Amino acid sequence: MPKVHIGLIGCGTVGAGVARILLHNQDVLEARVGAELNLKSVADLDIETDRGVAFAPGVLTTDAMAVVNDPQIDIIVEMIGGETFAKDVILAAVANGKPVVTANKALLAKHGDGIFAAASEKGVDVAFEASIGGCMPIVKTLRESLVGDRVRSMVGILNGTCNYILSKITDEGIPIETALADAQQNGYAETDPTLDVEGIDAAHKLTLLSSLAFGMQLDFDSLYIEGIQGISPMDIEYATAFGYRIKLLAISKLRQNGVEARIHPAMIPVGDLLSNVNGSLNAIMIHADAVGDMLLYGHGAGMMPTASAVVGDIVDIARNLMNRSPGRVPLLGYQTENVRRIPIIAIDDIVLHYYIRFSALDRPGVLSRISGVLGNYGISIQSVHQKGRKTNGAVPLVMLTHRSREADIKAALAEIQQMAVIKERPVLIRIEEKNSVD
Amino acid sequence: MPKVHIGLIGCGTVGAGVARILLHNQDVLEARVGAELNLKSVADLDIETDRGVAFAPGVLTTDAMAVVNDPQIDIIVEMIGGETFAKDVILAAVANGKPVVTANKALLAKHGDGIFAAASEKGVDVAFEASIGGCMPIVKTLRESLVGDRVRSMVGILNGTCNYILSKITDEGIPIETALADAQQNGYAETDPTLDVEGIDAAHKLTLLSSLAFGMQLDFDSLYIEGIQGISPMDIEYATAFGYRIKLLAISKLRQNGVEARIHPAMIPVGDLLSNVNGSLNAIMIHADAVGDMLLYGHGAGMMPTASAVVGDIVDIARNLMNRSPGRVPLLGYQTENVRRIPIIAIDDIVLHYYIRFSALDRPGVLSRISGVLGNYGISIQSVHQKGRKTNGAVPLVMLTHRSREADIKAALAEIQQMAVIKERPVLIRIEEKNSVD
Repeated sequence: MPKVHIGLIGCGTVGAGVARILLHNQDVLEARVGAELNLKSVADLDIETDRGVAFAPGVLTTDAMAVVNDPQIDIIVEMIGGETFAKDVILAAVANGKPVVTANKALLAKHGDGIFAAASEKGVDVAFEASIGGCMPIVKTLRESLVGDRVRSMVGILNGTCNYILSKITDEGIPIETALADAQQNGYAETDPTLDVEGIDAAHKLTLLSSLAFGMQLDFDSLYIEGIQGISPMDIEYATAFGYRIKLLAISKLRQNGVEARIHPAMIPVGDLLSNVNGSLNAIMIHADAVGDMLLYGHGAGMMPTASAVVGDIVDIARNLMNRSPGRVPLLGYQTENVRRIPIIAIDDIVLHYYIRFSALDRPGVLSRISGVLGNYGISIQSVHQKGRKTNGAVPLVMLTHRSREADIKAALAEIQQMAVIKERPVLIRIEEKNSVD
Repeated sequence: MPKVHIGLIGCGTVGAGVARILLHNQDVLEARVGAELNLKSVADLDIETDRGVAFAPGVLTTDAMAVVNDPQIDIIVEMIGGETFAKDVILAAVANGKPVVTANKALLAKHGDGIFAAASEKGVDVAFEASIGGCMPIVKTLRESLVGDRVRSMVGILNGTCNYILSKITDEGIPIETALADAQQNGYAETDPTLDVEGIDAAHKLTLLSSLAFGMQLDFDSLYIEGIQGISPMDIEYATAFGYRIKLLAISKLRQNGVEARIHPAMIPVGDLLSNVNGSLNAIMIHADAVGDMLLYGHGAGMMPTASAVVGDIVDIARNLMNRSPGRVPLLGYQTENVRRIPIIAIDDIVLHYYIRFSALDRPGVLSRISGVLGNYGISIQSVHQKGRKTNGAVPLVMLTHRSREADIKAALAEIQQMAVIKERPVLIRIEEKNSVD
């Protein structure tokens, strides 16, 4: 039986999961692949901690570059994370003509251009299914299944930490700080949750997805990113009353004049499948011309789900090595010469329904003054609600708007905020009525 | 740019959809594949009807075998359907060393052994993503993404006709005959709906899925198949009251002593994602050791969704031809020598919760006699409900059981049916409490 030798760099949670699958599921892998996937070397700074995996003597090493430079090793699996040494490892592997598997979305979203260019030039594969949505086969679906189709939009729940926190607030009515602490205690959030809670992690993923779907440049810097920090139990309560759930959505839609690519909390109708994706789970709804709506759902993070996706990539590459077909599928789905520069539409230019919550003094004429300003900016109101109780003399005044341009909404809110009767900064939450292009 | 020449045999609904994608989406296909996919010949008995596709002169022909034997044609796309001429076409193509794309689940489920063996021997690919779940990439997911994982169970809604009919009954409380007529009128059911309504179509698909997931033989004849003919609005109403939806499920679970593989209507909890898959849509929940639960959702049939999956397969094969890597992935996911014979567990030996509806005379002692018989067979009752009104002097008496062996349930029902107070054959519906192995 042919042997494919694997070098694993970084043996943290996911790395250990990969090792576990390669060692414990050897039988099923051989039965399917017809080759032995041999985990020849595992490099980590810490080679003392027990990872629940019985490595053969000589497999563990602290010298990552020795693994990358080992001529016997066929595939490098980068599980270090971060954007410095991980990048060195990947580029060194590529320079050595070795294909790479990685789950490093931050690195690829921000430095993917250089990495993919180097890999294309060398004719080696760089696979990254595990970077987006953990075990959901979204990269494969976009690169291989929807290859004859025209993707129009993608709406995803791509960050398990945020989804866990929002589900918790929805179920228990607790403040976000309490929900975050719970997430941290249960392993669903990092000690420093910034990347997740502020939407940056989801933006890394959406950068890659937009490129895969539309054949566009990697453009992390142009994405609109808003996290879940501003979401309160009160807004979630209102959302529920109106038949919505609040989710952190990653949205990418192809328009005539560019691509809408944005990460932000949004209200979606309770009937939508996405509204039923709860806890730390992820999902992505794709709308394409021929297939219509299609959804993938699964664990977007965690040791074993992510490791399973990494092993899927290892096998894909092993099959390419065995068949001498590296580069069989373009790394980002499109032939390099066909990647287009598509502008990302500014958030001010998008048009949506909006939820606005004012905190206003309960005085006659307030509603008329607020709606007057909205009217001046061409914003028409769908409904007004005043149900909550007074806090600090102010009452919550909630409005749902008809479709409006975001720039107009923001200008109106800036003006309204100046009124003496307005006690706090108004809360603005976007409403995504449909998961497909409308 | 390299050219790959395609011969399409059968230009009905899906065939015309394939032609449409190949001709209208040439730009996006070339941008991704780096090759021209040239639809060289289209064979159909009817070459007069306008299919909304502008074929170049000389493309249309009535001579299918001339296309199969054309040495310039690289890939044969079989869209004829049926188990006779379609089989001849596929075997002739394979004998000519030409890879084949098909959506013919009936043919593959029943005659796949011969076809896959011939293709393996010749070293040509036979791709069939469109056979199962239309555009959902379930074949690719099982063969390529979950390749290092151990699949434990699959629970799917794999027949859009049945799902449409059941959704209709649920929403409108109409009898199944009316719902079927509506489905036929709206193009969701064939004039002869037998294959769909009786569960046979779903069984074809489950046969292929079980083989892909577990590396087992194709074993259509051993599946348990029960359609939706016996489902009444009354049972759906009860299901709703108990917090369930009734769906036609295709279930395959790996057990210690074999595989449970069965098609039947079942009650599933309203909270399950599958319970929210409505209308003609399909979905499949997969449970595997590493990934946990994963779900794919999309249009399981219809012209363009199915055509999109066919084109995905054409591209997969084209990439194999361009890279000289045919056979890169084993046809059914496992190397031929590793396919095992796994017995399919008899339906009598499965253990589930059950819903039973008796039609009984409203007399004292009836409940005691019925529950006495159930007790004799070791069946314990979870709850009893008697809410409905009298029809023909009888009232509906509904019981939900604890986990029981199906053989015991059936024996008890056979005995109870003999009682003079029982007016109709009892209705038995299985309850699937969880979508994963329990």
